[in-house]
Amino acid sequence: MNQTPPTLDAIYAPIQGQLGLVEARLRGLVDQGHPVLRRLVEHISSAEGKRMRPAITLLASRFHPNDGALAVTMAAAVELLHAASLVHDDSVDNATVRRGLATVSSLWGDGVAVLLGDYLFATSAVFVCETGNIRVVSRFAETIREIATGELAESFGAFRLTLSMEEYSQRIYNKTASLFRTAAESGAILSGAPASTVQALVQYGKSLGMAFQIVDDILDFEGTQEEVGKPVGHDLLQGTLTLPAMLLLERYPHDNPVVKLFQRQDVEANRQQAIEMVRNSSILEDSYAVARRYLDDAAAALDSLPDTTERRSLLDLLAYATERRV
Amino acid sequence: MNQTPPTLDAIYAPIQGQLGLVEARLRGLVDQGHPVLRRLVEHISSAEGKRMRPAITLLASRFHPNDGALAVTMAAAVELLHAASLVHDDSVDNATVRRGLATVSSLWGDGVAVLLGDYLFATSAVFVCETGNIRVVSRFAETIREIATGELAESFGAFRLTLSMEEYSQRIYNKTASLFRTAAESGAILSGAPASTVQALVQYGKSLGMAFQIVDDILDFEGTQEEVGKPVGHDLLQGTLTLPAMLLLERYPHDNPVVKLFQRQDVEANRQQAIEMVRNSSILEDSYAVARRYLDDAAAALDSLPDTTERRSLLDLLAYATERRV
Repeated sequence: MNQTPPTLDAIYAPIQGQLGLVEARLRGLVDQGHPVLRRLVEHISSAEGKRMRPAITLLASRFHPNDGALAVTMAAAVELLHAASLVHDDSVDNATVRRGLATVSSLWGDGVAVLLGDYLFATSAVFVCETGNIRVVSRFAETIREIATGELAESFGAFRLTLSMEEYSQRIYNKTASLFRTAAESGAILSGAPASTVQALVQYGKSLGMAFQIVDDILDFEGTQEEVGKPVGHDLLQGTLTLPAMLLLERYPHDNPVVKLFQRQDVEANRQQAIEMVRNSSILEDSYAVARRYLDDAAAALDSLPDTTERRSLLDLLAYATERRV
Repeated sequence: MNQTPPTLDAIYAPIQGQLGLVEARLRGLVDQGHPVLRRLVEHISSAEGKRMRPAITLLASRFHPNDGALAVTMAAAVELLHAASLVHDDSVDNATVRRGLATVSSLWGDGVAVLLGDYLFATSAVFVCETGNIRVVSRFAETIREIATGELAESFGAFRLTLSMEEYSQRIYNKTASLFRTAAESGAILSGAPASTVQALVQYGKSLGMAFQIVDDILDFEGTQEEVGKPVGHDLLQGTLTLPAMLLLERYPHDNPVVKLFQRQDVEANRQQAIEMVRNSSILEDSYAVARRYLDDAAAALDSLPDTTERRSLLDLLAYATERRV
């Protein structure tokens, strides 16, 4: 995976038409409801993301013949669920900027952010129900529960210095990989694909999601504020242990800046020292190695699928989603 | 409806066994998940409500022969959804006490309240999915959307003096009557009852919910802090126009205390004056008359159903739910 990865346009080529329908579906929400609600939905949809999760749903739906309509509805639901969880996250974290735009909570207050998030969660569920597939609806509800469980675990564990690798994996599965998994799984199920295809895509989505979150956690140490869109060391300031911080604690058990930071001693100096120590050690490399193992698992999961354009797009997305750094 | 209404125990007699199963289902949640999550769920379930909504689901399921299992699952989901919306409401309103207990947001902060509410919403949806009935799941998702829409409308409309009766009705349908409706409707659908029975119970739930909210709005003027569990005139302080305040504005267009309060002039004096003027006029009586019309509609909706113990319980619940005041 060291060659230059293709552009997002190239990766999305097989589903370009369907992605347009997903966008139309999301824009359609703006025309509904209370005028202020419209303004809120418009604000959110103007901060266009990369649409990776809906793209995964659409690509995953194309390994078995079907007319594609259910996948479009599902893809819109997946993106809405993602938007809902960002709105609540920003309110919980008191974040002021997301994707270069002021957050809903910073503009309209936490109360509105809570209610708008609820509205978006519920609307995403209404969309999924339109597929008429109870198995997919169940998986979707379970995903919302897993996301909330992961966020709660992070919140309860804040400023605690003990976190096992198993607990870390469980938390990043819940808060991030669960939705990538459901994006892939639901596309496959709704296409009517056989169980083996569904299973392959479940594995792909899960593993990609794990790698995605680990790279996100790495960038909190490695990136610049401009790249990451939030202050470097943000996780540490929130009291959140991630893989690089766990490795730092393990390797320097004495006089560790993370320990001092979590005890609220010289927060700024210890944040800087922690970042420097991580950058000057093999920790970033070792963390990327963990992410790379998940990416290899994701790629291997697709081995059983036919070598189509869609399969190549899913493989290319692995490199793209992890910021071309792995 | 002027005779002394029966006790809640008497009303719930036909479903006592099933209600016990619902409680067991809710208690079962406490044994799951992260230890802190368990503590939160325990905290919530210790503030036992009257279980009116699940009781309605169970009673509504008994007009057509069935084994009752799906109704129990659904009733638990309905109560959980109610709990979820209370947790978010208290966070949005900065409420510190609910049902005599400190609120989650006041004890653990707004962030935890947001995430716990999400967890409870999602868990309620997981329960509904267990029924395997996509029509009921859709109705449930739509209800969450309606509740959020109603709360958003209230929030956006805060401190605005123009509210039509139609807007008021729409808002109280969304924030309160929608869930009463779904409680009744889902019980009927899951029992396999014919469309006419389902329709009768939809009408019953909707009308009861409207009356319930109107009485709640009246008690904000008429009740004592002890009865209502929150300061009298709380809605006015939040900038929320309700039926009694709308009537007060209509009858005293000049020099009205609500106008002054909404312009943040002498808040405390104008709150007291508004309450006094409402109490010393026919406004409470006229508001009760509106609630009574909804209760009559709810009772009339049951005319087509057989005269069973369950039907009598639903009728008795009308008086009970509206605090024996109507």
